[in-house]
Amino acid sequence: MNADIYDVIHHRRDVRAEFTGEPIPQDVLDRILAAAHAAPSVGLSQPWDFIVVTDPATRHAFYDHVQSERAAFAATLTGAAADRFAQIKIDGVLESSLSIVITYDPERGSPAVLGRHAIADTGLYSVCLAIQNLWLAATAENLGVGWVSFYREPHLRHLLNIPTAIRPIAWLCLGPVTHLQATPDLERHGWRRRRALDAAIHHDHW
Amino acid sequence: MNADIYDVIHHRRDVRAEFTGEPIPQDVLDRILAAAHAAPSVGLSQPWDFIVVTDPATRHAFYDHVQSERAAFAATLTGAAADRFAQIKIDGVLESSLSIVITYDPERGSPAVLGRHAIADTGLYSVCLAIQNLWLAATAENLGVGWVSFYREPHLRHLLNIPTAIRPIAWLCLGPVTHLQATPDLERHGWRRRRALDAAIHHDHW
Repeated sequence: MNADIYDVIHHRRDVRAEFTGEPIPQDVLDRILAAAHAAPSVGLSQPWDFIVVTDPATRHAFYDHVQSERAAFAATLTGAAADRFAQIKIDGVLESSLSIVITYDPERGSPAVLGRHAIADTGLYSVCLAIQNLWLAATAENLGVGWVSFYREPHLRHLLNIPTAIRPIAWLCLGPVTHLQATPDLERHGWRRRRALDAAIHHDHW
Repeated sequence: MNADIYDVIHHRRDVRAEFTGEPIPQDVLDRILAAAHAAPSVGLSQPWDFIVVTDPATRHAFYDHVQSERAAFAATLTGAAADRFAQIKIDGVLESSLSIVITYDPERGSPAVLGRHAIADTGLYSVCLAIQNLWLAATAENLGVGWVSFYREPHLRHLLNIPTAIRPIAWLCLGPVTHLQATPDLERHGWRRRRALDAAIHHDHW
């Protein structure tokens, strides 16, 4: 395990093509989920849940849906962008060892969630903090994580019997990988280049 | 520096009362911002910006606004909840060394953000992943972070001259601390108890 936090942060990648499909030991999965669950949350609401998806039929059904959403996005592109997108693999749903779906429950801790009265979305934000903890812990465990967002929320809710009041936030593919790419896939394929950090820093005001 | 990722994840706290106000060395601040900037983002859009706020007048103006929002929330509480909330410090805006406001630009990488066509909020999610990287890096550097969300977005946008198209996502207080609490403030003050991890885990479906 490589547990140095800066190494993990800088080597972490969004994985699509490098999953081996080997099993994840239960103790490793437990550590990763405990790391996610240790995230900060608005009003200590911990509004997340984790659905560990291993069922092949469920994964195949989700994969088929992702392919149809891929086609929908591709149809919005023309020229060089369409050509580049055609080269990019967008998911490892079938090749990864398992998937974890993270959800958001806006009722957790309601009605008076401390710190959420002025900004309703802070509950969503909390769930994302848990996702990043999960991602970094998995990277430290030499696993890869791939966030798949080519899906419609109602479709995923129906597929996993998620109650209407609960919102799915992410489908994460997880598992051992052959390696992590040194450069993000989208940059390697010419889709976008990373921005210089200096351009993102402002002092005292915008 | 304590760089072991699991130590950092489990000892990280949302800090209000423990800031010392000592300065943050520039190289430390640079490492923390680089960690945030290394976060994953939908379509490699990196839609975040960081406003480093040191100006005392700006911080005092924000502090005053936070106090008025505190009063607004307090007015929604009665009985034991009101009594508990009265004991809870909700910000370290004046005592921390500096603040960092993180913003979201939905136009970054538009119009075709790869992975965002079906779920507009994935752009917001990316910003939160950067926030958690920042939080963990700061914790590894023995600094504290406190997320203040008792504010109205239009107020903060006006205070920092943030363009209308850009959304402020978080005001984070940052700086050296006397120590990190072993138990989250809201649990110590009886506001909420942390949920057992087992209760948050589902298998294959909700």
